Amino acid sequence: MNKEESSLYRISEGLDMFLPHVSVDCVILAFHSKSLKVLLNRFKGYDKWMLPGGFVKREEDTHDSALRILAERTGLNDVYLKQFHFFGKKDRVKLDENRELLELYGIDKKIGDWYLQRFISLGYYALTKCKDIDIACAENEEVAWFAIEDIPSLYADHKHILDTAISLIRKGIGFIPIGYELLPEKFTIPELRVIYEAILGRKIDRRNFQRKMLSIGLIKPLNETRKSGAHKSPNLYTFIKEKYEEAKAYELQFMTNSL
Amino acid sequence: MNKEESSLYRISEGLDMFLPHVSVDCVILAFHSKSLKVLLNRFKGYDKWMLPGGFVKREEDTHDSALRILAERTGLNDVYLKQFHFFGKKDRVKLDENRELLELYGIDKKIGDWYLQRFISLGYYALTKCKDIDIACAENEEVAWFAIEDIPSLYADHKHILDTAISLIRKGIGFIPIGYELLPEKFTIPELRVIYEAILGRKIDRRNFQRKMLSIGLIKPLNETRKSGAHKSPNLYTFIKEKYEEAKAYELQFMTNSL
Repeated sequence: MNKEESSLYRISEGLDMFLPHVSVDCVILAFHSKSLKVLLNRFKGYDKWMLPGGFVKREEDTHDSALRILAERTGLNDVYLKQFHFFGKKDRVKLDENRELLELYGIDKKIGDWYLQRFISLGYYALTKCKDIDIACAENEEVAWFAIEDIPSLYADHKHILDTAISLIRKGIGFIPIGYELLPEKFTIPELRVIYEAILGRKIDRRNFQRKMLSIGLIKPLNETRKSGAHKSPNLYTFIKEKYEEAKAYELQFMTNSL
Repeated sequence: MNKEESSLYRISEGLDMFLPHVSVDCVILAFHSKSLKVLLNRFKGYDKWMLPGGFVKREEDTHDSALRILAERTGLNDVYLKQFHFFGKKDRVKLDENRELLELYGIDKKIGDWYLQRFISLGYYALTKCKDIDIACAENEEVAWFAIEDIPSLYADHKHILDTAISLIRKGIGFIPIGYELLPEKFTIPELRVIYEAILGRKIDRRNFQRKMLSIGLIKPLNETRKSGAHKSPNLYTFIKEKYEEAKAYELQFMTNSL
Protein backbone atom coordinates (compact mmCIF):
# COMPACT_ATOMS: atom_id res chain seq x y z
CA MET A 1 0.00 0.00 0.00
CA ASN A 2 1.44 3.37 -0.92
CA LYS A 3 1.18 6.95 0.20
CA GLU A 4 -1.68 7.69 -2.19
CA GLU A 5 -3.86 5.33 -0.22
CA SER A 6 -3.23 6.86 3.18
CA SER A 7 -6.22 8.73 4.48
CA LEU A 8 -4.14 11.68 5.65
CA TYR A 9 -2.83 12.14 2.15
CA ARG A 10 -6.45 12.05 1.02
CA ILE A 11 -7.10 15.30 2.85
CA SER A 12 -4.96 16.95 0.17
CA GLU A 13 -7.27 15.60 -2.51
CA GLY A 14 -9.86 17.89 -1.06
CA LEU A 15 -13.35 18.65 -2.17
CA ASP A 16 -12.86 17.80 -5.83
CA MET A 17 -12.79 14.22 -4.64
CA PHE A 18 -14.91 14.20 -1.47
CA LEU A 19 -18.18 15.54 -0.10
CA PRO A 20 -17.64 18.20 2.55
CA HIS A 21 -18.88 17.78 6.14
CA VAL A 22 -19.51 14.05 5.90
CA SER A 23 -17.26 11.36 7.31
CA VAL A 24 -17.53 7.62 7.79
CA ASP A 25 -16.30 5.76 10.86
CA CYS A 26 -16.07 1.99 11.20
CA VAL A 27 -16.36 0.04 14.45
CA ILE A 28 -14.76 -3.33 13.69
CA LEU A 29 -15.20 -5.75 16.56
CA ALA A 30 -13.69 -9.19 16.95
CA PHE A 31 -13.52 -11.79 19.67
CA HIS A 32 -10.07 -13.01 20.67
CA SER A 33 -8.50 -14.51 23.80
CA LYS A 34 -11.81 -14.41 25.63
CA SER A 35 -12.33 -10.70 25.13
CA LEU A 36 -13.98 -8.35 22.67
CA LYS A 37 -11.49 -6.36 20.61
CA VAL A 38 -11.85 -3.28 18.45
CA LEU A 39 -9.67 -2.34 15.50
CA LEU A 40 -8.08 1.09 15.79
CA ASN A 41 -5.54 2.92 13.74
CA ARG A 42 -3.24 5.86 14.19
CA PHE A 43 -1.18 8.19 12.07
CA LYS A 44 2.49 7.75 12.87
CA GLY A 45 3.70 10.56 15.09
CA TYR A 46 0.20 11.36 16.38
CA ASP A 47 -0.64 10.29 19.92
CA LYS A 48 -4.32 9.47 19.56
CA TRP A 49 -5.86 6.34 18.08
CA MET A 50 -9.02 6.50 16.00
CA LEU A 51 -11.67 4.30 14.48
CA PRO A 52 -10.81 3.56 10.85
CA GLY A 53 -12.51 6.41 9.06
CA GLY A 54 -12.49 8.64 6.05
CA PHE A 55 -14.62 10.53 3.57
CA VAL A 56 -17.32 9.92 0.97
CA LYS A 57 -16.31 10.30 -2.68
CA ARG A 58 -18.65 12.49 -4.67
CA GLU A 59 -19.74 9.60 -6.88
CA GLU A 60 -19.82 6.84 -4.29
CA ASP A 61 -22.64 5.30 -2.27
CA THR A 62 -21.85 5.74 1.42
CA HIS A 63 -21.81 1.98 1.95
CA ASP A 64 -19.10 1.66 -0.70
CA SER A 65 -17.20 4.48 0.99
CA ALA A 66 -17.19 2.50 4.23
CA LEU A 67 -15.85 -0.63 2.48
CA ARG A 68 -13.17 1.36 0.65
CA ILE A 69 -12.09 3.26 3.75
CA LEU A 70 -11.80 0.09 5.77
CA ALA A 71 -9.68 -1.55 3.06
CA GLU A 72 -7.45 1.52 2.68
CA ARG A 73 -6.84 2.05 6.36
CA THR A 74 -6.67 -1.51 7.65
CA GLY A 75 -6.28 -3.88 4.70
CA LEU A 76 -9.56 -5.47 5.70
CA ASN A 77 -11.73 -6.63 2.78
CA ASP A 78 -15.10 -8.32 2.33
CA VAL A 79 -16.42 -7.35 5.72
CA TYR A 80 -20.15 -7.48 6.31
CA LEU A 81 -20.50 -3.83 7.33
CA LYS A 82 -23.79 -2.43 8.54
CA GLN A 83 -24.80 1.11 9.33
CA PHE A 84 -25.78 1.53 12.98
CA HIS A 85 -26.09 5.25 13.80
CA PHE A 86 -25.15 8.69 12.60
CA PHE A 87 -23.44 11.28 14.76
CA GLY A 88 -24.57 14.82 14.07
CA LYS A 89 -23.64 17.01 17.02
CA LYS A 90 -22.17 20.26 15.75
CA ASP A 91 -19.13 20.14 18.04
CA ARG A 92 -18.34 16.44 17.85
CA VAL A 93 -15.01 17.00 16.09
CA LYS A 94 -12.46 19.14 17.88
CA LEU A 95 -10.94 21.40 15.26
CA ASP A 96 -7.72 21.71 17.25
CA GLU A 97 -7.15 18.00 16.83
CA ASN A 98 -7.59 18.26 13.08
CA ARG A 99 -5.29 21.29 12.95
CA GLU A 100 -2.66 19.29 14.79
CA LEU A 101 -2.94 16.48 12.22
CA LEU A 102 -2.57 18.88 9.29
CA GLU A 103 0.54 20.41 10.87
CA LEU A 104 2.02 17.02 11.69
CA TYR A 105 1.81 16.00 8.05
CA GLY A 106 2.73 19.38 6.62
CA ILE A 107 -0.55 19.78 4.73
CA ASP A 108 -1.04 23.35 3.59
CA LYS A 109 -3.76 25.11 5.57
CA LYS A 110 -5.48 26.30 2.44
CA ILE A 111 -5.59 22.80 0.96
CA GLY A 112 -6.61 21.29 4.28
CA ASP A 113 -9.17 23.94 5.17
CA TRP A 114 -12.14 21.69 4.40
CA TYR A 115 -10.82 19.29 7.05
CA LEU A 116 -11.09 22.05 9.66
CA GLN A 117 -14.87 22.06 9.47
CA ARG A 118 -17.74 20.32 11.10
CA PHE A 119 -18.29 16.66 10.09
CA ILE A 120 -21.38 14.52 10.41
CA SER A 121 -20.17 10.95 10.89
CA LEU A 122 -21.92 7.92 9.43
CA GLY A 123 -21.28 4.92 11.68
CA TYR A 124 -20.80 1.40 10.33
CA TYR A 125 -19.96 -1.68 12.34
CA ALA A 126 -18.93 -5.27 11.79
CA LEU A 127 -18.36 -8.34 13.92
CA THR A 128 -15.54 -10.44 12.52
CA LYS A 129 -13.11 -13.14 13.44
CA CYS A 130 -9.69 -11.78 14.32
CA LYS A 131 -8.00 -14.32 12.11
CA ASP A 132 -9.86 -12.96 9.07
CA ILE A 133 -7.73 -9.92 9.22
CA ASP A 134 -4.49 -9.43 7.42
CA ILE A 135 -3.64 -6.02 8.71
CA ALA A 136 -1.90 -3.98 6.04
CA CYS A 137 -2.23 -0.26 6.50
CA ALA A 138 -0.66 2.66 4.69
CA GLU A 139 2.99 3.25 5.49
CA ASN A 140 2.41 6.35 7.62
CA GLU A 141 -0.20 4.59 9.75
CA GLU A 142 -0.37 1.77 12.23
CA VAL A 143 -3.25 -0.58 13.04
CA ALA A 144 -3.90 -2.65 16.15
CA TRP A 145 -6.57 -4.50 18.11
CA PHE A 146 -7.56 -3.23 21.56
CA ALA A 147 -9.62 -4.98 24.22
CA ILE A 148 -12.76 -2.90 24.78
CA GLU A 149 -12.04 -2.65 28.50
CA ASP A 150 -8.65 -1.15 27.71
CA ILE A 151 -9.18 1.56 25.10
CA PRO A 152 -6.50 4.25 24.74
CA SER A 153 -7.22 7.95 24.33
CA LEU A 154 -9.22 8.34 21.11
CA TYR A 155 -9.52 11.09 18.53
CA ALA A 156 -12.63 13.38 18.54
CA ASP A 157 -15.81 11.60 19.76
CA HIS A 158 -14.65 8.16 18.67
CA LYS A 159 -14.98 6.78 22.19
CA HIS A 160 -18.64 7.80 22.09
CA ILE A 161 -19.08 6.20 18.67
CA LEU A 162 -17.46 2.99 19.93
CA ASP A 163 -19.56 3.00 23.13
CA THR A 164 -22.72 3.51 21.08
CA ALA A 165 -21.90 0.52 18.89
CA ILE A 166 -21.09 -1.70 21.88
CA SER A 167 -24.19 -0.56 23.72
CA LEU A 168 -26.37 -1.41 20.69
CA ILE A 169 -24.78 -4.83 20.41
CA ARG A 170 -25.17 -5.43 24.16
CA LYS A 171 -28.83 -4.49 24.01
CA GLY A 172 -29.28 -6.69 21.00
CA ILE A 173 -27.24 -9.64 22.09
CA GLY A 174 -30.22 -11.66 23.19
CA PHE A 175 -31.48 -11.49 19.66
CA ILE A 176 -28.56 -10.74 17.38
CA PRO A 177 -27.14 -14.07 16.28
CA ILE A 178 -23.63 -13.11 17.14
CA GLY A 179 -21.63 -16.28 17.55
CA TYR A 180 -21.68 -17.36 13.92
CA GLU A 181 -19.39 -14.52 12.93
CA LEU A 182 -16.99 -15.22 15.75
CA LEU A 183 -16.85 -18.99 16.27
CA PRO A 184 -15.58 -21.91 14.19
CA GLU A 185 -18.21 -24.16 12.61
CA LYS A 186 -18.20 -26.52 15.59
CA PHE A 187 -18.04 -25.12 19.07
CA THR A 188 -18.86 -25.90 22.67
CA ILE A 189 -21.50 -24.16 24.76
CA PRO A 190 -18.84 -22.69 27.08
CA GLU A 191 -17.10 -21.19 24.03
CA LEU A 192 -20.34 -19.54 22.99
CA ARG A 193 -20.99 -18.37 26.53
CA VAL A 194 -17.57 -16.76 26.84
CA ILE A 195 -18.39 -14.60 23.80
CA TYR A 196 -21.64 -13.45 25.35
CA GLU A 197 -19.85 -12.73 28.60
CA ALA A 198 -17.17 -10.74 26.80
CA ILE A 199 -19.72 -8.61 24.99
CA LEU A 200 -21.94 -8.09 28.02
CA GLY A 201 -18.94 -7.47 30.26
CA ARG A 202 -20.33 -9.74 33.00
CA LYS A 203 -20.68 -13.38 34.00
CA ILE A 204 -23.72 -15.33 32.84
CA ASP A 205 -25.34 -18.21 34.72
CA ARG A 206 -24.09 -21.41 33.03
CA ARG A 207 -27.17 -23.55 33.18
CA ASN A 208 -29.61 -20.80 32.20
CA PHE A 209 -27.41 -19.90 29.26
CA GLN A 210 -27.36 -23.43 27.86
CA ARG A 211 -31.11 -23.79 28.24
CA LYS A 212 -31.83 -20.41 26.67
CA MET A 213 -29.53 -20.92 23.71
CA LEU A 214 -31.10 -24.27 22.91
CA SER A 215 -34.62 -22.93 23.30
CA ILE A 216 -33.99 -20.05 20.87
CA GLY A 217 -33.36 -22.72 18.24
CA LEU A 218 -30.38 -21.18 16.44
CA ILE A 219 -27.95 -23.93 17.46
CA LYS A 220 -28.13 -27.70 17.53
CA PRO A 221 -26.01 -30.40 19.17
CA LEU A 222 -23.76 -32.55 16.99
CA ASN A 223 -23.08 -36.17 17.79
CA GLU A 224 -19.47 -35.27 18.40
CA THR A 225 -17.25 -34.37 21.29
CA ARG A 226 -13.93 -32.62 21.29
CA LYS A 227 -10.87 -34.49 22.52
CA SER A 228 -9.32 -32.32 25.18
CA GLY A 229 -6.55 -33.84 27.29
CA ALA A 230 -7.30 -33.91 30.97
CA HIS A 231 -10.85 -32.49 30.73
CA LYS A 232 -14.05 -34.31 30.10
CA SER A 233 -14.66 -34.23 26.32
CA PRO A 234 -17.25 -31.48 25.75
CA ASN A 235 -20.15 -31.85 23.32
CA LEU A 236 -19.94 -29.90 20.11
CA TYR A 237 -22.70 -27.72 18.66
CA THR A 238 -23.25 -25.93 15.37
CA PHE A 239 -25.46 -23.10 14.12
CA ILE A 240 -28.58 -23.95 12.12
CA LYS A 241 -27.71 -21.88 9.08
CA GLU A 242 -31.21 -21.16 7.76
CA LYS A 243 -32.49 -20.09 11.17
CA TYR A 244 -29.43 -18.00 11.59
CA GLU A 245 -29.87 -16.16 8.29
CA GLU A 246 -33.50 -15.52 9.14
CA ALA A 247 -32.52 -14.01 12.46
CA LYS A 248 -29.76 -11.95 10.86
CA ALA A 249 -32.21 -10.26 8.53
CA TYR A 250 -33.84 -8.65 11.54
CA GLU A 251 -30.76 -7.71 13.39
CA LEU A 252 -29.92 -4.17 12.37
CA GLN A 253 -33.49 -3.08 12.53
CA PHE A 254 -33.79 -4.12 16.13
CA MET A 255 -30.63 -2.34 16.94
CA THR A 256 -31.74 0.83 15.27
CA ASN A 257 -35.05 0.83 17.03
CA SER A 258 -33.51 0.31 20.41
CA LEU A 259 -32.01 3.77 20.38
CA MET B 1 -46.15 31.12 9.73
CA ASN B 2 -44.63 33.31 7.06
CA LYS B 3 -42.74 32.88 3.85
CA GLU B 4 -39.35 32.98 5.59
CA GLU B 5 -40.21 29.72 7.27
CA SER B 6 -41.08 27.80 4.13
CA SER B 7 -38.48 25.25 3.26
CA LEU B 8 -38.52 26.19 -0.44
CA TYR B 9 -37.69 29.76 0.47
CA ARG B 10 -34.87 28.31 2.55
CA ILE B 11 -33.15 27.08 -0.59
CA SER B 12 -32.43 30.74 -1.38
CA GLU B 13 -30.68 31.10 1.95
CA GLY B 14 -28.10 28.77 0.54
CA LEU B 15 -24.87 27.51 1.93
CA ASP B 16 -24.22 30.45 4.22
CA MET B 17 -27.00 29.00 6.32
CA PHE B 18 -26.91 25.26 5.61
CA LEU B 19 -24.49 22.39 5.22
CA PRO B 20 -24.27 21.14 1.62
CA HIS B 21 -25.18 17.57 0.65
CA VAL B 22 -27.00 16.74 3.88
CA SER B 23 -30.75 16.63 4.29
CA VAL B 24 -33.10 15.47 7.02
CA ASP B 25 -36.34 13.60 6.39
CA CYS B 26 -38.98 12.86 9.01
CA VAL B 27 -41.36 9.90 8.97
CA ILE B 28 -44.19 10.93 11.29
CA LEU B 29 -46.61 8.09 11.88
CA ALA B 30 -49.91 8.22 13.71
CA PHE B 31 -52.77 5.90 14.28
CA HIS B 32 -56.22 7.15 13.28
CA SER B 33 -59.51 5.55 12.17
CA LYS B 34 -58.05 2.07 12.55
CA SER B 35 -55.17 2.66 10.21
CA LEU B 36 -51.59 3.84 10.32
CA LYS B 37 -51.12 7.29 8.81
CA VAL B 38 -48.06 9.18 7.70
CA LEU B 39 -47.70 12.95 7.57
CA LEU B 40 -46.73 14.31 4.15
CA ASN B 41 -46.42 17.78 2.76
CA ARG B 42 -46.26 19.36 -0.64
CA PHE B 43 -45.31 22.65 -2.20
CA LYS B 44 -48.34 24.31 -3.75
CA GLY B 45 -48.33 23.83 -7.51
CA TYR B 46 -46.04 20.78 -7.34
CA ASP B 47 -47.60 17.39 -7.94
CA LYS B 48 -45.54 15.21 -5.66
CA TRP B 49 -45.88 14.85 -1.92
CA MET B 50 -42.83 14.44 0.30
CA LEU B 51 -41.80 13.55 3.80
CA PRO B 52 -41.35 16.72 5.85
CA GLY B 53 -37.70 17.47 5.25
CA GLY B 54 -35.08 20.14 5.07
CA PHE B 55 -31.47 20.99 5.72
CA VAL B 56 -29.00 21.18 8.60
CA LYS B 57 -27.93 24.64 9.75
CA ARG B 58 -24.20 25.05 10.04
CA GLU B 59 -24.37 25.56 13.80
CA GLU B 60 -27.11 23.10 14.63
CA ASP B 61 -27.05 19.50 15.92
CA THR B 62 -28.81 17.28 13.41
CA HIS B 63 -31.39 16.26 15.99
CA ASP B 64 -32.30 19.92 16.49
CA SER B 65 -32.50 20.30 12.71
CA ALA B 66 -35.07 17.54 12.57
CA LEU B 67 -37.18 19.16 15.31
CA ARG B 68 -36.97 22.59 13.65
CA ILE B 69 -37.77 21.24 10.17
CA LEU B 70 -40.76 19.36 11.47
CA ALA B 71 -42.07 22.48 13.22
CA GLU B 72 -41.47 24.69 10.17
CA ARG B 73 -43.07 22.37 7.67
CA THR B 74 -45.93 20.89 9.68
CA GLY B 75 -46.44 22.97 12.81
CA LEU B 76 -45.67 19.90 14.87
CA ASN B 77 -43.75 20.52 18.10
CA ASP B 78 -42.35 18.44 20.97
CA VAL B 79 -42.31 15.19 19.06
CA TYR B 80 -40.17 12.34 20.36
CA LEU B 81 -38.08 11.94 17.20
CA LYS B 82 -35.55 9.15 16.86
CA GLN B 83 -33.00 8.60 14.14
CA PHE B 84 -33.58 5.30 12.37
CA HIS B 85 -31.42 5.11 9.25
CA PHE B 86 -29.37 7.20 6.85
CA PHE B 87 -29.75 7.08 3.09
CA GLY B 88 -26.49 7.47 1.22
CA LYS B 89 -26.95 6.16 -2.32
CA LYS B 90 -25.35 8.59 -4.76
CA ASP B 91 -28.39 8.76 -7.04
CA ARG B 92 -31.17 8.79 -4.44
CA VAL B 93 -32.31 12.31 -5.35
CA LYS B 94 -33.39 12.90 -8.93
CA LEU B 95 -31.93 16.23 -9.93
CA ASP B 96 -34.68 16.82 -12.48
CA GLU B 97 -37.21 16.89 -9.68
CA ASN B 98 -35.20 19.49 -7.81
CA ARG B 99 -34.76 21.54 -10.99
CA GLU B 100 -38.52 21.49 -11.44
CA LEU B 101 -39.02 22.80 -7.91
CA LEU B 102 -36.56 25.64 -8.41
CA GLU B 103 -38.30 26.66 -11.62
CA LEU B 104 -41.75 26.41 -10.05
CA TYR B 105 -40.72 28.87 -7.35
CA GLY B 106 -38.63 31.08 -9.59
CA ILE B 107 -35.46 30.51 -7.62
CA ASP B 108 -32.43 31.68 -9.56
CA LYS B 109 -30.34 28.73 -10.79
CA LYS B 110 -27.16 30.21 -9.41
CA ILE B 111 -28.66 30.70 -5.97
CA GLY B 112 -30.31 27.31 -6.08
CA ASP B 113 -27.31 25.46 -7.50
CA TRP B 114 -26.45 23.79 -4.19
CA TYR B 115 -29.91 22.22 -4.24
CA LEU B 116 -29.09 20.52 -7.55
CA GLN B 117 -26.50 18.30 -5.92
CA ARG B 118 -26.37 14.96 -4.25
CA PHE B 119 -27.88 14.76 -0.72
CA ILE B 120 -27.31 12.20 2.00
CA SER B 121 -30.53 12.00 3.97
CA LEU B 122 -30.67 11.51 7.73
CA GLY B 123 -33.89 9.68 8.62
CA TYR B 124 -35.85 10.42 11.80
CA TYR B 125 -39.15 8.90 12.81
CA ALA B 126 -41.85 9.36 15.41
CA LEU B 127 -45.02 7.63 16.47
CA THR B 128 -47.59 10.15 17.64
CA LYS B 129 -51.25 10.59 18.29
CA CYS B 130 -53.05 12.31 15.42
CA LYS B 131 -54.81 14.65 17.78
CA ASP B 132 -51.48 15.99 19.03
CA ILE B 133 -51.10 17.69 15.76
CA ASP B 134 -52.19 21.19 14.97
CA ILE B 135 -51.15 21.30 11.36
CA ALA B 136 -49.91 24.75 10.44
CA CYS B 137 -47.58 24.80 7.51
CA ALA B 138 -46.04 27.65 5.56
CA GLU B 139 -48.41 29.45 3.20
CA ASN B 140 -46.98 27.99 0.02
CA GLU B 141 -47.23 24.44 1.32
CA GLU B 142 -49.92 21.99 2.31
CA VAL B 143 -49.81 19.18 4.84
CA ALA B 144 -51.94 16.05 5.14
CA TRP B 145 -52.17 12.59 6.66
CA PHE B 146 -52.16 9.56 4.35
CA ALA B 147 -53.00 5.97 5.18
CA ILE B 148 -49.87 3.89 4.59
CA GLU B 149 -51.73 1.57 2.24
CA ASP B 150 -52.69 4.56 0.12
CA ILE B 151 -49.57 6.65 -0.44
CA PRO B 152 -49.51 9.04 -3.41
CA SER B 153 -46.54 9.50 -5.74
CA LEU B 154 -43.65 10.74 -3.61
CA TYR B 155 -40.66 12.96 -4.29
CA ALA B 156 -37.20 11.36 -4.78
CA ASP B 157 -36.70 8.14 -2.76
CA HIS B 158 -39.17 9.14 -0.06
CA LYS B 159 -41.25 6.03 -0.63
CA HIS B 160 -38.17 3.94 0.13
CA ILE B 161 -37.46 6.00 3.26
CA LEU B 162 -41.05 5.56 4.40
CA ASP B 163 -40.99 1.83 3.65
CA THR B 164 -37.74 1.44 5.56
CA ALA B 165 -39.23 3.13 8.61
CA ILE B 166 -42.40 1.04 8.51
CA SER B 167 -40.43 -2.14 7.98
CA LEU B 168 -38.25 -1.36 10.99
CA ILE B 169 -41.29 -0.70 13.15
CA ARG B 170 -43.02 -3.85 11.93
CA LYS B 171 -40.04 -5.99 12.68
CA GLY B 172 -39.68 -4.40 16.07
CA ILE B 173 -43.33 -4.42 17.06
CA GLY B 174 -43.01 -7.56 19.17
CA PHE B 175 -41.03 -5.66 21.69
CA ILE B 176 -41.29 -1.96 20.96
CA PRO B 177 -43.86 -0.74 23.45
CA ILE B 178 -45.83 1.05 20.83
CA GLY B 179 -49.33 1.61 22.13
CA TYR B 180 -48.47 4.14 24.80
CA GLU B 181 -47.60 6.73 22.18
CA LEU B 182 -50.78 6.14 20.25
CA LEU B 183 -53.57 5.40 22.71
CA PRO B 184 -55.39 7.45 25.32
CA GLU B 185 -54.62 6.67 28.98
CA LYS B 186 -57.48 4.18 29.19
CA PHE B 187 -58.13 1.81 26.34
CA THR B 188 -59.67 -1.53 25.48
CA ILE B 189 -57.79 -4.62 24.32
CA PRO B 190 -59.44 -4.45 20.90
CA GLU B 191 -58.22 -0.85 20.53
CA LEU B 192 -54.70 -1.97 21.28
CA ARG B 193 -55.02 -4.92 18.91
CA VAL B 194 -56.23 -2.73 16.06
CA ILE B 195 -53.03 -0.68 16.35
CA TYR B 196 -50.90 -3.80 16.10
CA GLU B 197 -52.97 -4.97 13.14
CA ALA B 198 -52.63 -1.62 11.40
CA ILE B 199 -48.87 -1.58 11.82
CA LEU B 200 -48.42 -5.21 10.82
CA GLY B 201 -50.89 -4.89 7.96
CA ARG B 202 -52.60 -8.17 8.89
CA LYS B 203 -55.16 -9.65 11.28
CA ILE B 204 -54.02 -11.02 14.65
CA ASP B 205 -55.69 -13.84 16.56
CA ARG B 206 -57.84 -12.18 19.24
CA ARG B 207 -57.41 -14.55 22.10
CA ASN B 208 -53.66 -15.03 21.62
CA PHE B 209 -53.19 -11.29 21.49
CA GLN B 210 -54.98 -10.65 24.77
CA ARG B 211 -53.07 -13.42 26.52
CA LYS B 212 -49.72 -12.26 25.16
CA MET B 213 -50.26 -8.61 26.03
CA LEU B 214 -51.22 -9.46 29.59
CA SER B 215 -48.33 -11.90 30.00
CA ILE B 216 -45.79 -9.30 28.87
CA GLY B 217 -46.88 -7.28 31.89
CA LEU B 218 -46.92 -3.81 30.36
CA ILE B 219 -50.65 -3.28 30.75
CA LYS B 220 -53.08 -3.88 33.59
CA PRO B 221 -56.86 -4.04 33.77
CA LEU B 222 -58.72 -1.18 35.45
CA ASN B 223 -61.87 -1.76 37.41
CA GLU B 224 -63.75 0.23 34.81
CA THR B 225 -65.73 -0.41 31.70
CA ARG B 226 -66.61 1.95 28.93
CA LYS B 227 -70.26 2.80 28.37
CA SER B 228 -70.91 2.05 24.73
CA GLY B 229 -74.53 2.08 23.61
CA ALA B 230 -75.68 -1.20 22.15
CA HIS B 231 -72.48 -3.13 22.77
CA LYS B 232 -71.42 -4.97 25.86
CA SER B 233 -69.37 -2.52 27.93
CA PRO B 234 -65.73 -3.44 27.34
CA ASN B 235 -63.12 -3.54 30.12
CA LEU B 236 -60.60 -0.74 30.20
CA TYR B 237 -56.86 -1.21 30.55
CA THR B 238 -53.94 1.11 31.14
CA PHE B 239 -50.18 0.95 30.66
CA ILE B 240 -48.03 0.36 33.73
CA LYS B 241 -45.86 3.40 33.26
CA GLU B 242 -42.72 2.21 35.08
CA LYS B 243 -42.76 -1.13 33.27
CA TYR B 244 -43.30 0.69 30.05
CA GLU B 245 -40.31 2.99 30.52
CA GLU B 246 -38.21 0.01 31.50
CA ALA B 247 -39.34 -1.83 28.37
CA LYS B 248 -38.45 1.13 26.21
CA ALA B 249 -34.92 1.04 27.55
CA TYR B 250 -34.60 -2.73 27.06
CA GLU B 251 -36.65 -3.28 23.95
CA LEU B 252 -34.34 -5.92 22.65
CA GLN B 253 -34.31 -8.11 25.71
CA PHE B 254 -38.08 -8.26 25.58
CA MET B 255 -37.88 -9.43 22.03
CA THR B 256 -35.61 -12.24 23.09
CA ASN B 257 -38.29 -13.61 25.35
CA SER B 258 -40.81 -13.65 22.56
CA LEU B 259 -38.55 -15.51 20.12
